[in-house]
Amino acid sequence: MLKPYVLGIDIGGTNTVFGIVDARGQVIASDSIKTKKHSKFDDYLEDLCHGIQHLLEKNEAEGKIQGIGIGAPNANYYTGEILNPPNLPWGEPVIPLAEKVSKALGLPVAVTNDANAAALGEMTYGAARGMKDFIMITLGTGVGSGIVVNGQLVYGHDGFAGELGHLIMKRNNGRMCGCGRTGCLEAYCSATGVARTAREFLEVRTEPSTLRDLQIEDITSKDVYDAAVAGDKLAQEIFTYTGTILGEAFADMVTFTSPQAIILFGGLAKSGELLMKPLQEAFDKSLMPVFKGKTKILLSELKESDAAVLGASALGWEAKYRSDNAGMENTASE
Amino acid sequence: MLKPYVLGIDIGGTNTVFGIVDARGQVIASDSIKTKKHSKFDDYLEDLCHGIQHLLEKNEAEGKIQGIGIGAPNANYYTGEILNPPNLPWGEPVIPLAEKVSKALGLPVAVTNDANAAALGEMTYGAARGMKDFIMITLGTGVGSGIVVNGQLVYGHDGFAGELGHLIMKRNNGRMCGCGRTGCLEAYCSATGVARTAREFLEVRTEPSTLRDLQIEDITSKDVYDAAVAGDKLAQEIFTYTGTILGEAFADMVTFTSPQAIILFGGLAKSGELLMKPLQEAFDKSLMPVFKGKTKILLSELKESDAAVLGASALGWEAKYRSDNAGMENTASE
Repeated sequence: MLKPYVLGIDIGGTNTVFGIVDARGQVIASDSIKTKKHSKFDDYLEDLCHGIQHLLEKNEAEGKIQGIGIGAPNANYYTGEILNPPNLPWGEPVIPLAEKVSKALGLPVAVTNDANAAALGEMTYGAARGMKDFIMITLGTGVGSGIVVNGQLVYGHDGFAGELGHLIMKRNNGRMCGCGRTGCLEAYCSATGVARTAREFLEVRTEPSTLRDLQIEDITSKDVYDAAVAGDKLAQEIFTYTGTILGEAFADMVTFTSPQAIILFGGLAKSGELLMKPLQEAFDKSLMPVFKGKTKILLSELKESDAAVLGASALGWEAKYRSDNAGMENTASE
Repeated sequence: MLKPYVLGIDIGGTNTVFGIVDARGQVIASDSIKTKKHSKFDDYLEDLCHGIQHLLEKNEAEGKIQGIGIGAPNANYYTGEILNPPNLPWGEPVIPLAEKVSKALGLPVAVTNDANAAALGEMTYGAARGMKDFIMITLGTGVGSGIVVNGQLVYGHDGFAGELGHLIMKRNNGRMCGCGRTGCLEAYCSATGVARTAREFLEVRTEPSTLRDLQIEDITSKDVYDAAVAGDKLAQEIFTYTGTILGEAFADMVTFTSPQAIILFGGLAKSGELLMKPLQEAFDKSLMPVFKGKTKILLSELKESDAAVLGASALGWEAKYRSDNAGMENTASE
């Protein structure tokens, strides 16, 4: 019989948030630790498990946890590992995350990357409830994605499917991307991408802008947003540029899986009409005729403070990996 | 209990081929009619059913057919219809294909588009046996695709997923495409695309080429292939150009579903190293690092004369639509 709760853990570059979640998607209680406090993973793990034990005790939830779901950058569902995480501090190329957490807490564990966790959360508790085909796009420091087809997350043969932030949008003279190539969607349409567009526009254009009052190296997407809301034309054009590239990319995504919706999550997704109007216009204009008017662009329905934990926790219901087993029992990995 | 055979029907622009197939993928017998002989669909259908009945009688296969699978341009798995078929002669915007064939032959029917049928054929009988994640690309007059994820064809929420021939490869000054947009993969990497590249190269370049001896409007991809094999440098460069764009597109496709293989089928796929060498080079160079060395590019293992019928027939094993039922019983359409 299922136990009443799952535990969701979201490992972010700054904070690791964990929470107890019930079957209706209520976060019963949550807490967090600093991800970067420890330079060794094992010290971090000890700190994390201590925090979790404390949370379970305080909420009388010991023995009531069905499983643990973890969302983390570069985490692989099939292997349970984190691979070369660029924003995590522990310096180990491969961390057997599922194994170590399962051993430490004595519970089954499943891991996936943060964008896949967001997609699961949206499907289980949010804007994608009832949908069997949708794409989740997270607009944060980078651009992440989780693809759902026939009601299942798409992991691909190696567990790394769904890197839509790295679709090539500019084949010539594209911007350098963190992945080592040039022209990726992420280099334009992440929060970092918006700041890069601002620097580029300020360098090559002559219009006045309040952004010129700032140190050009320090401009953030938040600065661009504030200026745009205050009526700054150049800042507004930066959002138009960003939204247009996103809309064109989304039209390409539709030719793949013809999703019922593309769902946006993350800081940049909260830019309102500044981003959504040019995005929707470019999307409508760029779609292949057979797809026109069919795919909705929606915003996440999960509270931002809960979303990461909820998404990760959704994986906890089906977690199968236990450190005391000889190997992975994960049915999807066969 | 399953009956021993299925019937596969491939409706092409010129010929309609149909065959009796057993569970091991042997084509027991096949025949064909001209697709364009009749200007009305019902006349065509009568002709087709007559041919099928004759084939069944001759091979003592009446009563031994489990179901019928049909591959046709713009055919929709969910609705059983052909929608606005551009290369078919009957002038009707919507043809209820599954319903009409099921009624005429008294057997369950399932339909899908020709590229999806090719993917099913490859998965059931060909190069993708045992694969759960792969992409089928058909290089013919156009560029078609069938995507398999977790062992299932990707149909999307409306049945039209998998239009990878219409990924945008040139966002500026792209070629006109039959879909009404510009810059699509198909406008460059189909047989027609190769002929267009030849005309473009001959117009804007000055090198000598045996292709200049031909009427420029009449040049076909076959002419380019023959010239390239005979050592013509310009013709060889046309294949390099084509293969490079394909390889770049394939690298984008991998970011979506991280397939075990991309499998090529169709006339152009038989161009050998002329096409495959630049394709593989551009693919290797364009892949995101995390995917490098993981996805194979393979050629179809099905005999071309059998492939279309085999692919369509693979759908016959699970065909559920019967005209005597109140509605679609197709489990995938729920």
